[in-house]
Order: sequence, then structure tokens, then C-alpha cells
Amino acid sequence: MASDIRNAVIDFSRMTASAVAVVSDVVRGGQPLVGFGFNSNGRYAPSGILRERMIPRLLDARPETLQAEDGTNIDPVKCRHVMMTNEKPGGHGERSVAVGTIDMALWDLAAKIEDRPLYRLLADRYNDGRFDPKVEVYAAGGYYYPGKGVDQLRDEIRGYLDMGFEAVKIKIGGAPLEEDVRRIEAVLDVVGGEGRRLAVDANGRFSLSEAIRYAEILGPYRLKWYEEPGDPLDYALHSAVAEVSTVPVATGENLFSTVDARNLIRYGGLRPDRDVLQFDPVLSYGLVEYLGTLEMLARHGWSPRRCVPHGGHPFGLHIAAGLGLGGNEAYPKVFQPFGRFAAGTTLDRGFATLPEAPGIGYERVPGLCDIFRSLVE
Amino acid sequence: MASDIRNAVIDFSRMTASAVAVVSDVVRGGQPLVGFGFNSNGRYAPSGILRERMIPRLLDARPETLQAEDGTNIDPVKCRHVMMTNEKPGGHGERSVAVGTIDMALWDLAAKIEDRPLYRLLADRYNDGRFDPKVEVYAAGGYYYPGKGVDQLRDEIRGYLDMGFEAVKIKIGGAPLEEDVRRIEAVLDVVGGEGRRLAVDANGRFSLSEAIRYAEILGPYRLKWYEEPGDPLDYALHSAVAEVSTVPVATGENLFSTVDARNLIRYGGLRPDRDVLQFDPVLSYGLVEYLGTLEMLARHGWSPRRCVPHGGHPFGLHIAAGLGLGGNEAYPKVFQPFGRFAAGTTLDRGFATLPEAPGIGYERVPGLCDIFRSLVE
Repeated sequence: MASDIRNAVIDFSRMTASAVAVVSDVVRGGQPLVGFGFNSNGRYAPSGILRERMIPRLLDARPETLQAEDGTNIDPVKCRHVMMTNEKPGGHGERSVAVGTIDMALWDLAAKIEDRPLYRLLADRYNDGRFDPKVEVYAAGGYYYPGKGVDQLRDEIRGYLDMGFEAVKIKIGGAPLEEDVRRIEAVLDVVGGEGRRLAVDANGRFSLSEAIRYAEILGPYRLKWYEEPGDPLDYALHSAVAEVSTVPVATGENLFSTVDARNLIRYGGLRPDRDVLQFDPVLSYGLVEYLGTLEMLARHGWSPRRCVPHGGHPFGLHIAAGLGLGGNEAYPKVFQPFGRFAAGTTLDRGFATLPEAPGIGYERVPGLCDIFRSLVE
Repeated sequence: MASDIRNAVIDFSRMTASAVAVVSDVVRGGQPLVGFGFNSNGRYAPSGILRERMIPRLLDARPETLQAEDGTNIDPVKCRHVMMTNEKPGGHGERSVAVGTIDMALWDLAAKIEDRPLYRLLADRYNDGRFDPKVEVYAAGGYYYPGKGVDQLRDEIRGYLDMGFEAVKIKIGGAPLEEDVRRIEAVLDVVGGEGRRLAVDANGRFSLSEAIRYAEILGPYRLKWYEEPGDPLDYALHSAVAEVSTVPVATGENLFSTVDARNLIRYGGLRPDRDVLQFDPVLSYGLVEYLGTLEMLARHGWSPRRCVPHGGHPFGLHIAAGLGLGGNEAYPKVFQPFGRFAAGTTLDRGFATLPEAPGIGYERVPGLCDIFRSLVE
């Protein structure tokens, strides 16, 4: 998924992703059912960990250690347990991406075996049958790239609005403050001056003093949120920023386990009435771990509505709909074909509908379906 | 480095390690100087990350981005910067092992180019020329394995004392409490009843209540330390254990960055007058990162003497001697040949001497030297 964009910290010219297929022995219409998964952007393909540890452990496991009790379906919770055999605690990164990539494919497969879209399976199993028929999404873009000026940024944002997005996100921290302010004001102009339609993302770039300075400058614009002001593991910095920022603070995409997420909640000083948690289920050991994170959040008084996952993948869209999250990221112009919606998804005033195909619906995502098909041919 | 031992959390039957060689164009005695590195046990070989990201970045870099200013040596600090290009913050695991493995080889090479043992290079650069001529080491063993009873454990411990070790460490938490108590009392009997000669290690296994129960039971034995009582990222648990434990608490081997280490110091409630920090330089981005961790510790009032690195590698021995740490782990009977001392090292009343060969001295470690030689033949 290489591209020439960059944020405040990295460029994506050599970015990679892993794609996996889990082929079952459940046959429908003469074909075995297959689950598909990939890892979302920002973290590299965990190829070695998949090939040397996670895939061999699953292939070596006895079937009953992977199946639901009645043997009619795969059990992603049991599979997670098998994948994490002989793995020490701590060190949540890379490994978490490998497990999450397979976890996505397992949930896709489980929903296909039940012959229904994943969000309905999740709603029935974990949300008393309740689901959101559409999910609020925002267009993550506004990256820096060579030669891109404010005019190109305006054009990009207009493009998102034309697609049906209401809210957008742009990068900050990769240019001098004055230039970032010009970029923010230009985008606000395009979205009708409404701060709630623009989020900004520093990708963890700032020191404590820079993070606080930006918080004070951003305040009057009443933005949607101020994302990753500093190092994702610097909870004291987040606590200080939350103390001064009138704009909601968003973070979590670079915390890859429930115990790391719990530290953010314990020590990060975030405000359950407004701040936004962006843990990405794929990068952090999959939906099995994410369910534990939601339980942990509930114990600390946080609603799932405060969660808006990073990653811009249809898996996140199903999770948001089925578990009642606050929304999902979207990458309408970057990380293609991994950022695309499934064909048939409608986008209206910032809300996306869910695909009704069994599973996650990757068979209907242009470009992505070809990558997945190549895995099983 | 597979073996049939296990701790409270994992077995090591499929454990792997990466070994790397950095071949320079500095020729001595007709041969190019080569630096060697490997990753210490407990975390798996980071093969994919080495091959796909870290090694290509170094090979693609312009020489001046890797060299000391005057061009006469490699600069591990600059190399670290090159290796971490386009890597996002957070998610410190696996990647940290890959970088640390190469970092070890770079320091070995840098000291060889200066034609002196690494500990002397470190003392001159970072410790005002001061070094410890010998380093306190302890024998980490007492693993569980099939059929091993208390008699075998006694024999194992006697073997360590015969080698010249004064202090030993055994695993706990992988057997019922009563059995662990029998094991502790048997080992205490072998070491003359002196609690300060026995450390115990739960490998992060316990819940909060179990961790506190063990702390209370261990107290009267006045042990050397109580290691990894619970999840390494559960700082609140560590804080509670430190509150009740009269035995020093040791932890840190599963925290892989300075920011994670800082969180332990900020939130873990550890006591700078007695507790022990076991960050492993190899698993956590190498010595370059470890130097930053020591700086962070100094700012928080912690002496380097409270640091006793995990990993049992000669690299740790040089770091401990050159930077004035409190000691180093040793694996006299496990993880061979990676746990061996260099030939010529003497062990007397629990202190090990340093090899005087240039670099780390891997050429003199039986078995390990063959593995490294095979990389460059």
C-alpha cells in the first residue's frame, strides 16, 4: 500500500500490508467458505510472525481447540488462545498486528458460516441484538505530500464532501505552526466554518510544551477533535493536554492491547464526556481483545459511543454497527484498495450503510477482492 | 534455542533466536572486522522485521548517515536513527528486538574497531572512564520441566554454587503454592538458609490478589527479590505489591522502550532504595535506547546500581561493567550456547570478570562462536 503521502512522523513510500485467507471445510454452493483479513495501515506487514508463529500454531492445533462447542463454526476466541500459546506478556506490537490480521479473517469466516453480515452476528452475541443500521464515518486525509499547497488541500476536502462525508480529518505537526493554521482555516472555510466538521491529527509528534501550545491555539476553532498530540504512551502528556484542551482529545490507535488501553484510562486524564478512543481492533490482537477493551472501558465508566476505531476498514464498520460504537474512520482517497467501501455502501450526510453480504463483504470491495482471490486460486 | 523447560507462562520447546553479523570494510590482519549480535531469550527471532525493514534500511543508507563524524568508526546512535525511519511511535515489541539485535552487533563492531573490550569503550564514552572490573551475576534457573522434583532442583542449585555463583533464581507460579513453598525452602537449605541468595520469578503470571498473597508469604524468607509478580504493564498491581512486599520487587524485562520504562517509574510505585529494574538492552531497541533509559532513571532519582538486566548475555555483562549497573543475569545451564560466558571468564564468589578481547568477546564463547562464524563463511 505504498504511497507518497506523509504525516508528521513517517512517510508511506514503503508501507506494506499482509493479507490472509482462512479456508474452511464448510462447502456452500460447491465452494469452501473462506474468511479474509488484512492489517490496517501505519504498521507494517507482520509477515515473519504470521509465517513462523501464528499460522503454524493454528495449523498444528487439534480441531476442537479452534471450534465452537457444537462443532458447527470456528471460534475466534479459542483461535486467539491457540495463537497466543507460549507468548510472554507485554511487548504489544507487531505480534498484535499478526494476530489481529488472522482474527479479522476468522470473524469474516464465522459470519459467512452463519450466512449473515458480521455486524448482525456481533449484535446478537454481544449487544442484545441491537445494532446501528448506519455508522458515522469521517474522511481521513489532509496528508502532506510534495508540492501540495492549500489549494490542493481545499480541492481534496471538497472531494470528500461531494462523496457524502460531513466531517474530515487533516494532518498537523508536519509543517510550521503558521502553515498548519492556514491549512486549518482553509478547510474550515470549505466545511462552512463549522469546527465540529474538522478533526486534526498530530500523529504523536509533539513535545509536552508543543502539544499544549497547539491545544490552546486550536481551542477557539471548536474542532471535532485534536488527535495524538504526543507520544501515545506518554500518559502524563495526555493528562496535561486534556486539562487545557477545550477541543476533545482523541488517541489510542498506537496502543495495541487491553492492558495498554487500561493504562491510558487510568493515567491519561481523558474525559469520558467528550474524548475519543481510537483503538484499532486489527492492530491490537483483533476483535477478541477489543471486546475485552470495551468491558474494561465499561468498568471505568466509558461508553462504547466514545470509541471511533482507527483503520478505515469495513471490519471496523461492522464492529461499530454491531457493538454501538461512536463511528469509524474512512480513507476515501488513501491506502487503496484497502481503504475502499464495499460496492453498494451508500454514504449520506456522513453516515455509511453496512453491506448485507455474509461476512464482512470484502468480495464486494473493488481491487481488494482481487487481492484476496489471488490468495486462494 | 529450543528446550523442554517452562516458566509459569510459557514453555520454550519452540523458542527461536536471530543471530546477525555486521561486516565492515575495516581490515585487520587481512580480515574485515565483523560485529556479532543475537536476541536474548523469551522473545522470538524477529526474522521478518530484520529482513524486510531493519537490514534493508541500513544497506540502503548513505555511509555518512551511519558513521562517526570523523569517518573512522560506525556510530550505533546514527544507525539506530536510520533503522527507525518511518516507524510510528508506540507498539514497542518485536521491532524493538530486531533493532536491539543489530545494535548489539554494531557495538561489538565499534569496540573492535577501537581495538578494546566494549566495557572500556562504554566507560570512557558514558561513565567518565569508570568501570567495574567484575560484575555481580546470579544463576537464573529453577525452571519447571517434566518429571523435575525437589531433589533435581537441589542438584541444579548445588551445581550453580559449584560453578562459583553465590545467588540463584528459581521460577514460581507454575505449580501450586504449597509446592512452590517446598521448592523455595529446599533451595534455601542449599544456599545456607540465606534469603539474600535466592530470588524468585513469577513471570507475570499472578492476578493482583495472588501477587499480594505471594508477597506476604515470601516476606519472612527475606529473599533477594520477587520478580514479575503480575502483568508487566499493570503498574497499579506493581504499586500495590511494592506497598506490601518487604522483599524487593524486580521487574522490567518485558518493557521494551524508555517510554514504557518511564511509565513503570511514574506509576509502578517501586522503591528506589531497594527495588530492581531488569530492562534488557537487547530486547528493547539496544544500548542506544538503554542509555536514554538510564538518563530517565537518573532524572527520577534512580541509581544505575538498581539495574540488573535480563538476558544473561555477555553484552549485558559489558554494559553492567562499563556503566556501573548493579549486576547481570546469567543462564549457566539454559538457552545454550547463548547463555555461556566467554572462555577465560572467571567466576568467584558471585562475581564474573570481563573478557579482555576486543568487542564483546563472542569469538571466545564455545558454540556461539561457531554460529556466528557460519554467518560470514
